[in-house]
Amino acid sequence: MSLTSPVLNVKPTMDPAVAQGVLKSVFEMERAWNAHDMQAYADNLTDDCQWVNIVGMFWDGKTAVHRAHEAFHQTMFKDVGYKVEEVMVRSIATSVAIAVVTLKVGAFTTPGGTRMPENTNRLTLVLVDEGGQWRISSAQNTVVDMRAAGHDPTKG
Amino acid sequence: MSLTSPVLNVKPTMDPAVAQGVLKSVFEMERAWNAHDMQAYADNLTDDCQWVNIVGMFWDGKTAVHRAHEAFHQTMFKDVGYKVEEVMVRSIATSVAIAVVTLKVGAFTTPGGTRMPENTNRLTLVLVDEGGQWRISSAQNTVVDMRAAGHDPTKG
Repeated sequence: MSLTSPVLNVKPTMDPAVAQGVLKSVFEMERAWNAHDMQAYADNLTDDCQWVNIVGMFWDGKTAVHRAHEAFHQTMFKDVGYKVEEVMVRSIATSVAIAVVTLKVGAFTTPGGTRMPENTNRLTLVLVDEGGQWRISSAQNTVVDMRAAGHDPTKG
Repeated sequence: MSLTSPVLNVKPTMDPAVAQGVLKSVFEMERAWNAHDMQAYADNLTDDCQWVNIVGMFWDGKTAVHRAHEAFHQTMFKDVGYKVEEVMVRSIATSVAIAVVTLKVGAFTTPGGTRMPENTNRLTLVLVDEGGQWRISSAQNTVVDMRAAGHDPTKG
């Protein structure tokens, strides 16, 4: 994994306090994941949080999202960390912001026995302001296919 | 593809007018995609719309999202339709709603030459109210891995 600092890409029109609150949650989640502290991880979720993971599993509500992460951190993610490489932040309403996070995840073995090498994920987080604390209301994560990236019609 | 009607799962606390506006956009996008009318498709996007596709490509802004879809509809999606199977809708702020859409996509061949059989996608859409029209501000799409679904820790 890289030791370089993450790239922070904050839209210039954003309220700096909002950007700061959003980034605080993004990095608190990274810290909690790498400590495998799923209680701290879940403290960053709203009660009605919904989550779609890299294989399309859908978890509805903080309890389900927490339970799923807890189970996976006792098994496939037991020793697996991630590193945030880039965060793009923007506001879409007074109390709602979006962070698109690019992160590098360590190698792991899926419950089905497939070995996943170290890979890059792209994670869209929708955050809402809950009394000054920005919490995740929606998240979806996708593995970046580096081979496919060469066919992006908006590039080159 | 199935001919059954989609399942609509609207949180009971939602303003029916909001749910209706959101569903209108979801089904307008399905119609535009199946007609390969990318101009109509893009009319449902906000100017600052961001999109993460199934292989983790990231498009920033309506122009890029439109351009990417246009290019793919001239090639790999030329004859490929999708069918909405389920929509889960909730409000997260006065002017912001989230729709998690499960859809069945027809078989296609990627630009890299990989044949993708008919598959299920899960798409999170973040919609904002622009003067009565609910437009997509953020979207992320993931292929549902049916084999992995058996290992969902929140099920069974």
